[in-house]
Amino acid sequence: MGLLLDEEIGRLAMKHMAAKGVILRMGETVRAFEGHAQGRVAKVRTSRDVIDSDLCLLAVGVKPTSELAVQAGLAVDPKGGILINPFCQTNDPDIYAGGDCVTNACLHGLSGGGIFAPQGSTSNKHGRIIANHIAGLAEPFPGVLGTVICKVFEITIARTGLTEVQARALGYDVETVLWAGADLPHYYPGTKPFCMKLVVNRRTRQLIGFQAVGAGDVDKRLDVAATAISLQATIDTIAHLDLGYAPPYSPPLDPILTAAHIAQNKLDGITKGISPLELRRRVEQGDRDIVLVDVRTPAEREQVRLPFEDRTVHIPLGALRERLGELPREKQIVPFCKVSLRGYEAERILSGAGFPNVSFLDGGIAAWPFELVTPK
Amino acid sequence: MGLLLDEEIGRLAMKHMAAKGVILRMGETVRAFEGHAQGRVAKVRTSRDVIDSDLCLLAVGVKPTSELAVQAGLAVDPKGGILINPFCQTNDPDIYAGGDCVTNACLHGLSGGGIFAPQGSTSNKHGRIIANHIAGLAEPFPGVLGTVICKVFEITIARTGLTEVQARALGYDVETVLWAGADLPHYYPGTKPFCMKLVVNRRTRQLIGFQAVGAGDVDKRLDVAATAISLQATIDTIAHLDLGYAPPYSPPLDPILTAAHIAQNKLDGITKGISPLELRRRVEQGDRDIVLVDVRTPAEREQVRLPFEDRTVHIPLGALRERLGELPREKQIVPFCKVSLRGYEAERILSGAGFPNVSFLDGGIAAWPFELVTPK
Repeated sequence: MGLLLDEEIGRLAMKHMAAKGVILRMGETVRAFEGHAQGRVAKVRTSRDVIDSDLCLLAVGVKPTSELAVQAGLAVDPKGGILINPFCQTNDPDIYAGGDCVTNACLHGLSGGGIFAPQGSTSNKHGRIIANHIAGLAEPFPGVLGTVICKVFEITIARTGLTEVQARALGYDVETVLWAGADLPHYYPGTKPFCMKLVVNRRTRQLIGFQAVGAGDVDKRLDVAATAISLQATIDTIAHLDLGYAPPYSPPLDPILTAAHIAQNKLDGITKGISPLELRRRVEQGDRDIVLVDVRTPAEREQVRLPFEDRTVHIPLGALRERLGELPREKQIVPFCKVSLRGYEAERILSGAGFPNVSFLDGGIAAWPFELVTPK
Repeated sequence: MGLLLDEEIGRLAMKHMAAKGVILRMGETVRAFEGHAQGRVAKVRTSRDVIDSDLCLLAVGVKPTSELAVQAGLAVDPKGGILINPFCQTNDPDIYAGGDCVTNACLHGLSGGGIFAPQGSTSNKHGRIIANHIAGLAEPFPGVLGTVICKVFEITIARTGLTEVQARALGYDVETVLWAGADLPHYYPGTKPFCMKLVVNRRTRQLIGFQAVGAGDVDKRLDVAATAISLQATIDTIAHLDLGYAPPYSPPLDPILTAAHIAQNKLDGITKGISPLELRRRVEQGDRDIVLVDVRTPAEREQVRLPFEDRTVHIPLGALRERLGELPREKQIVPFCKVSLRGYEAERILSGAGFPNVSFLDGGIAAWPFELVTPK
């Protein structure tokens, strides 16, 4: 998962799965599957203990089957993916390769090299490229973005382009957005939540990565993001896309436009956020400079809270302007709410009132990828 | 509807509505609504007759409310839309206007002028542009594509960019694609049909218009099309978009990619299609040069047929190569099937066999916008 999703999106996906009874553990080795009379796996014995199971899914990964190619003298990369040119020719121009056994170019050289991204969609495209080339039509395949989408119970997990971790490792100066909210207007029947992360190249303002997870309509936003990245769109262009709006399909401003607005605000220095990973790391390292401000209503606080109550001040947004005196100006103030819309507004109020160091919590409670606290 | 949808997509939408019991008639004037005891409309009296009704929907159009602006001396266009610059300033720079009362610029000057396109999404964007400009942030609004989506019963009707009629009137040399099919792989539960039309600039190969109608997942394809048009994508770029593929979300090649492939094939002279409007016009004008070839199976023919049986030859696709002698080489041959996939293959077989004038029926039976024939 590390290559496909950044930690916060991966953890949010795991939280969804855990809520469905899926047992996800790390750092253990499976020793045995133990069945029962009907031939189904009843227990999984690991290096730690024994887990009762109704269903076992083995996700052992994918690797290219390229032994035949190697025996034929074709070039493969260190992971075994057959190397091809834009017409799907191998180093022997009379031998074409396509599908799950090849290494793909990454669109616009985003990844700085080839990527192994086996997808049925890409295989189909390779087939057309190869048939065209054989027939004398030299249409080059531009490469892929490493787009992946999958359905796990009723949630969707999706990604395209670079993760933040990949982008930073490749030397990109990146800004990120973690957006949480609903796929439809709040009043429309069937509205469902999801979380979305944008990875933006600070220098060019181009979107270079997208990840999302949730029960909401993720696939539409994935495809818009993949189209935008393919066309090297800036967040400024994305912020103004004339997407289809009617209540059965989207809020008036589609979430991907709102996320682009957040990216604009961050890049233009209009607001400042802090990621949940960074916040947790600093609190756990004992950083005493951080004070959280929960700007939700008391009723919301009764339902669920962040950990770190010992450093959280509760001031509902509507009361913030008259209670500024309760907050220490020398600390880093981190306002938050359910999705960080009010958290953002609180940041604007506090910064406007002269607090020098305020960052809203990216994505708020809804995008918090770790355990939440339910008050007794 | 003429300004929003081309005739075939408009008629397909009307067929869907008629199938739900909606009475759509043209060329009549409503004279009176007649109620019953519960205060609901029971009958609609028109210039032709009286229609029993359960529900009446008045779709009387939208026009800008700009009297106040006119009184204030602000410039409006002939339809009453307030004229604004990219910062939503009127001709009085201290007065901003946004929302449903203004005339918008059309993105990339596609329409050659301003368009009245009142949408909640655009109004929201105007609000941000205006607030930014007042606050000293001069972010220009690039304009709209005239994107519209609406839900009618369980079908979706959507459009963005230029219709074929608009594009031709503006002098564009256009190619069109009429695609029909399903939104998911055929084996996946819940797969639903829809039809889609692409309007392509032949000179630049850019997508300039999109329309779709059906029960399937239209909104996702609309948003991809709107993003692609905004970014001036060619059909060659669209054909290779790395969109999210997994069976719950899309066939391996998303319909919009398949439609782009059809556009490529047409522009590159690899295949030739004829639109249902053109086919019907020519047949009704008594053109005796057209012979239709229904390449579906006998079982499919028992369910539904095109009109024009008197000039239709039935040869299932699998038998076509051995029955070429039954078709007249001097005529225009129009093969078709349910969605024109087999129709296209038949065109390739016939053209390959030396038939000089073969055009598959765009979109096949599924996109036929007129009455179909059900065999007795």
